[in-house]
Amino acid sequence: MADKDLRSLFIHQLKDTYFAENAILKALPQVAEAARSEDLKGALAVHLKETEAQVKRLEQVFQILGERPEGVECKAIQGILAEGQEVLEEFKDGDALDAGLIAAAQAVEHYEITRYGTLLAWARQLGLSEAESLIKETLVEEENTDDVLSELAEDAVNPAAAA
Amino acid sequence: MADKDLRSLFIHQLKDTYFAENAILKALPQVAEAARSEDLKGALAVHLKETEAQVKRLEQVFQILGERPEGVECKAIQGILAEGQEVLEEFKDGDALDAGLIAAAQAVEHYEITRYGTLLAWARQLGLSEAESLIKETLVEEENTDDVLSELAEDAVNPAAAA
Repeated sequence: MADKDLRSLFIHQLKDTYFAENAILKALPQVAEAARSEDLKGALAVHLKETEAQVKRLEQVFQILGERPEGVECKAIQGILAEGQEVLEEFKDGDALDAGLIAAAQAVEHYEITRYGTLLAWARQLGLSEAESLIKETLVEEENTDDVLSELAEDAVNPAAAA
Repeated sequence: MADKDLRSLFIHQLKDTYFAENAILKALPQVAEAARSEDLKGALAVHLKETEAQVKRLEQVFQILGERPEGVECKAIQGILAEGQEVLEEFKDGDALDAGLIAAAQAVEHYEITRYGTLLAWARQLGLSEAESLIKETLVEEENTDDVLSELAEDAVNPAAAA
């Protein structure tokens, strides 16, 4: 059952993640525009640039595997982004908007962290060392973005929302 | 704009998480049944019991806030679970099934980790110390489950899938 082995699962998840990153690329500018805190706008702008590089890294991984870069519909990221959109609509006039936007952005980050964490373990298992390095580089960026958002929430945005 | 403040955002996310935990409770037995590895079946059975306790803890948090426990549709968990179901269907006859099931379970865990992490920060900000303790207890369980699944994947399931 070679077509259902770990390599094919890896390619399946690579396509899922490629779809997700492209959906995030489209969604991020709207979130940055809605944010009120300049620090949050800045953090999201930095992450938009990182996301562009992450898409290119995924394309390199497809190339390593001899596969054409393509996405498969990722219902998970669609649901996560739809939920973020709902919070944006519901809380746009309130003091907690930025706190809600950070929560939504961190749900996106954690989705990416779990996917890249899995891809990293599978690349290692499959002996794809060049792919492993590319995935590791992105994973570190995603974890760092999550940390930056946590600090911003705890130090500034949550206190302002509760004031 | 008191109805759009951090407390109302906290209650909104509590309802979202309550919906998600109940959806996970329904989905877990099917995943455990599909798993081939006895260790994976065991880990999922332990987490099913934990999830039952986590739902009860959320009900306690609703009570602390003087709110009736109820869910709001959580499109994120619906998408994450739908994606897991797709992997189960697509890889059920292949050697990588358990690796795919662990990836799906870890996507669920990371969704819970981000939601409880946010709820924890907001409970702290709102001075809800009893709620904070309950949320912290669940967050530690979710992080532990994620670690157990990573170890199981790296030590046994991924090597078997690539063999």
